[in-house]
Amino acid sequence: MIYLDHAATSHPKPASVVDKMTWFISQGCANPGRASHPLANDAARLIFDTRERLIRFFRAGSNAQAIFTANITASLNVILKGLLKSGDEVIVSSMEHNAMMRPLRQLEQDGVTVTVIACDSRTGLIDLKELDKAISPATKLVALNHGSNTFGTIQPVAGIGRICRKNDCLFLVDTAQTAGCIPINMLESEIDFLTFTGHKGLLGPMGIGGFVMSEKAQAERIVPLMTGGTGSNSELEVQPDFLPDALESGTPNLPGIAGLNAGLRWLEEHTVSAVFQHEQQLITQLINGLNSISGIRVFGLPPGQNRVGVVSFVIDGMDNGEVDEFLSYEHEICCRTGLHCSPASHKTMGTFPQGTIRLSVGVSTTEQEIHQVLEVLQRLVSRFQP
Amino acid sequence: MIYLDHAATSHPKPASVVDKMTWFISQGCANPGRASHPLANDAARLIFDTRERLIRFFRAGSNAQAIFTANITASLNVILKGLLKSGDEVIVSSMEHNAMMRPLRQLEQDGVTVTVIACDSRTGLIDLKELDKAISPATKLVALNHGSNTFGTIQPVAGIGRICRKNDCLFLVDTAQTAGCIPINMLESEIDFLTFTGHKGLLGPMGIGGFVMSEKAQAERIVPLMTGGTGSNSELEVQPDFLPDALESGTPNLPGIAGLNAGLRWLEEHTVSAVFQHEQQLITQLINGLNSISGIRVFGLPPGQNRVGVVSFVIDGMDNGEVDEFLSYEHEICCRTGLHCSPASHKTMGTFPQGTIRLSVGVSTTEQEIHQVLEVLQRLVSRFQP
Repeated sequence: MIYLDHAATSHPKPASVVDKMTWFISQGCANPGRASHPLANDAARLIFDTRERLIRFFRAGSNAQAIFTANITASLNVILKGLLKSGDEVIVSSMEHNAMMRPLRQLEQDGVTVTVIACDSRTGLIDLKELDKAISPATKLVALNHGSNTFGTIQPVAGIGRICRKNDCLFLVDTAQTAGCIPINMLESEIDFLTFTGHKGLLGPMGIGGFVMSEKAQAERIVPLMTGGTGSNSELEVQPDFLPDALESGTPNLPGIAGLNAGLRWLEEHTVSAVFQHEQQLITQLINGLNSISGIRVFGLPPGQNRVGVVSFVIDGMDNGEVDEFLSYEHEICCRTGLHCSPASHKTMGTFPQGTIRLSVGVSTTEQEIHQVLEVLQRLVSRFQP
Repeated sequence: MIYLDHAATSHPKPASVVDKMTWFISQGCANPGRASHPLANDAARLIFDTRERLIRFFRAGSNAQAIFTANITASLNVILKGLLKSGDEVIVSSMEHNAMMRPLRQLEQDGVTVTVIACDSRTGLIDLKELDKAISPATKLVALNHGSNTFGTIQPVAGIGRICRKNDCLFLVDTAQTAGCIPINMLESEIDFLTFTGHKGLLGPMGIGGFVMSEKAQAERIVPLMTGGTGSNSELEVQPDFLPDALESGTPNLPGIAGLNAGLRWLEEHTVSAVFQHEQQLITQLINGLNSISGIRVFGLPPGQNRVGVVSFVIDGMDNGEVDEFLSYEHEICCRTGLHCSPASHKTMGTFPQGTIRLSVGVSTTEQEIHQVLEVLQRLVSRFQP
């Protein structure tokens, strides 16, 4: 099997992630913050260590706060619905995932204005001047997909952050495809809400995500989307108003946090820069190879230019579903076809509604695997050509 | 170590739960419903099998629907906030956990009426006649803690279900302390929303919970609290309106579902009736033993009467924190002290604000362990008595 579906979830996980989760489930599985026995204290320490590690990993500064959720979709819902009120404007790009657009379309019905900046139809990049012009006094938030899960385009967050700070609005970044794959510096890019998922580039398991908040973001007092037991202020039937408790109710996903902790340690050791180099080499090989096969059209930026390890293409005259079946079943190559939960980006790039075939690389992907996939695709195309 | 904190989370998990999670994280960790490659299909099958298993386990009938969430707190928030609108009334008991009360106190500010039925101060039981009288034409929902996490009281859900059906209001049950510990029959008890957590009596890991919906509940069209990618209707920026997709956004916690699946299989094999018998024997031994130590006061129902495996007590003249430290650190007995995130139940039973010491048993607890704990407590009390 050749696994090229890392944009959906990284696979396989590092052995240290599997081991730490197994250890936690079998040995250390106690509920933290609600008792003082040693098992519960160990669990509380694990949570604390993982929060600290996330804050360092994203260069968020010592006053940042890390919040855990079930996944990045939950993170986006908690922030967008807790922050935006009727009369507020939010600006997004035309490259967003439905995890961003669906909550915003709901909020639109409550009087929030959603402004979409059209990105370049060839590269998927946002135009910074357009963004600057679009910001109005009502703009509360600029919320942006950092790396496209469909076309790989990396948006220039540092430039966007400067524009947000100048215009005094908040800046949210969706790092689903970039966390763990490219170095991110929250302070330098002036990011207020960095939303992340644990099971992609951070190499942890599914079921754990979260967000890191700048000091400015913390001052906003987000209305909790979910409330309940926090292990704090237990005498009160109202939610505590301090962080992280205000935004974390119910028993946390401790095995998930254990796995994320191990994923972060793996990345600290191997470095994100090395991961970035590795993935850049692979997609350069992949895109150059695809471009050399006649009848294959690759979308988005050329290799070497602001790209994460996600490559979308179509084969002229072939149905994406057929290609998928050929790759998945005849050759055990794991890919994805369709719209990848991001109709907006396909509309931007002219691939709506038919979608694309997506191959995405990760830390475990090898040059040899890319070579094999290119051979298989060459054979497929040859079959259909005279 | 003697682990008597099963009401917080069951420990240790069955070996089959650890093994299945480890297998899934290391071998089968693909993202379902969003691709057609074999790994993704295996993940989709695991989810489907676990839904079916939950529906059978809770005797919910073939038209029921199972929804996954991160924990029971999320389940309660999704249902309560998606269902109740300004002008609606919800009736609860005075024995609820803050996972119920905190969302409801939030909803009160939006015009939902929250009526609390005072339970018996000795037993914690709700009075069925009081409940029947309290229901008004505005009553949309009766929402109830099935088994108290503080005092162990099991509410008579079958009788409550009949009253709800007669008065044509919906019935929600919080099974945090009862699922996997006592047999539950959704159809017979006319339960519309059965909320559960995976990591307590169901013997799975933290990070996975959910709810099962009756046909009547499904007809209510709950407004999704969280929206985003579902792998379905990917061409639309609005949430699909069909279940389970409408109420499940973002990548699911697959390792958690794998663990829950194994926990359910364990319970199917060993039977919930056998677990119930086991825990009844243990708490009978524990309560009788505690009652025989002078100076210890046990709260709630006598053994043998509608009780789950949770026992709360205080020692006259001693601070709960001191007892906790003595048990946890001097004797490695894991217990909990305080309010257990349920100030309402402590107010009902007269133990607010000082709280109680709580011991809770599970499938792994032995008679010998209970014997040892009783000896330790006898010694502690003797120290402070002349």
